[in-house]
Amino acid sequence: MSATPASTPRLFVDLPLGPDTAPVIDGAAAHYLLNVMRLKTGDPLLLFDNRSGEWLGAIADAGKRSLSVRIDRQTRDLEAVPDLWLCFAPVKKARLDWIIEKATELGVARLQPVITERTIVERVKAERIEAQIIEACEQCGRTAVPTLADPVKLPQLLKDWPAGRTLLFADEAGGAPFASVDAPAPAAILTGPEGGFTDRERALLLASTDVRRVALGPRILRAETAAIAATSLWMARHGDWT
Amino acid sequence: MSATPASTPRLFVDLPLGPDTAPVIDGAAAHYLLNVMRLKTGDPLLLFDNRSGEWLGAIADAGKRSLSVRIDRQTRDLEAVPDLWLCFAPVKKARLDWIIEKATELGVARLQPVITERTIVERVKAERIEAQIIEACEQCGRTAVPTLADPVKLPQLLKDWPAGRTLLFADEAGGAPFASVDAPAPAAILTGPEGGFTDRERALLLASTDVRRVALGPRILRAETAAIAATSLWMARHGDWT
Repeated sequence: MSATPASTPRLFVDLPLGPDTAPVIDGAAAHYLLNVMRLKTGDPLLLFDNRSGEWLGAIADAGKRSLSVRIDRQTRDLEAVPDLWLCFAPVKKARLDWIIEKATELGVARLQPVITERTIVERVKAERIEAQIIEACEQCGRTAVPTLADPVKLPQLLKDWPAGRTLLFADEAGGAPFASVDAPAPAAILTGPEGGFTDRERALLLASTDVRRVALGPRILRAETAAIAATSLWMARHGDWT
Repeated sequence: MSATPASTPRLFVDLPLGPDTAPVIDGAAAHYLLNVMRLKTGDPLLLFDNRSGEWLGAIADAGKRSLSVRIDRQTRDLEAVPDLWLCFAPVKKARLDWIIEKATELGVARLQPVITERTIVERVKAERIEAQIIEACEQCGRTAVPTLADPVKLPQLLKDWPAGRTLLFADEAGGAPFASVDAPAPAAILTGPEGGFTDRERALLLASTDVRRVALGPRILRAETAAIAATSLWMARHGDWT
């Protein structure tokens, strides 16, 4: 079997893929492939479905607004994603985009928006974020798409917290050095909004069984920096970077 | 001594500060303090000079385009920055901005743009980057400003490489897991452009004495993600995050 050129378009489709399937792509994805990438009948492409892994196929029939694909062979199995959730207070637009893109690249299993007392950005556009997640998956080679959970208020998050999942609370007021805390999967990271957590929230967090307070160095990290740094540290130690 | 409110403006000045100094601030910084922050005579502010640490002062005289400051007391010593360089191939605008801001927040000592064979962005606007570095220092509480080196081509960087400084080469083609490589200061991280390194560059790097090839997990990280993840990992293990 020959290797697939790095330039082969790679696309998520929300359709079950397999050796006997003939997926039809339409909408924005078809527009991109036909009019931006200018693919023609016979051109190869990689598809993944978040169910069965990744498949190499070729365009069987390129129409004006849709195209059908002939599946040739499986190129990768569905990956086992490390069981890390990123719980984050939504921040302003570009910085929120960055959290979504980077957390997906770094390998989180679930993105959980958390509304805190100082969260200014309360409306999270799920459709926009889903599109960013998919785009990051297509770019970074993931075959499994992280879950985007509905936003939840912090007290509710803690009330419903699953027993045994360590919540690494990135507290700007201090804590154990992140690298010193042993927190294998299942685990989660919690990062705050631009203004940080309130004293009341801190007390609530520290009274919770599965919460461990962690510090990310002596400087004041922005919300998105803390999220990306903490995710990297966890992945390198407990995820699939080893 | 009372604590300084978190809302106190914090500003870099390129003037020596001390108990007997009366720094005068003009230009864009004065415009910001007078017209954006609307500070008046008597209002407190924090200044740092990249030489002597951080000082609390108050506005002694607010003019129209400049202001003089009365220094009250020293609030922090000049920090000892971990001796980590980030050597990075410049990438496109927003992603380059992100590397600069995040590397400064995370604590690097020196930012070294490196021109590689696949580097598309060859012109680096030093003035723009310097301003971003200063802004990130003001925001994250640094008292020492990272150095921005002149861009250099990769073969020249390696030719002039200081003996004994480990260069952690983030290679998308593989390498030892980052967390498994022991590389205390002095150290450096090298990240590539959007298109990665060429085979010729990889051979050149691997033939260099101080170079260690490191991997950042199974997914394809964007250039800026690799830079931020690698810097976080190094800081947590060998820097001042412990």
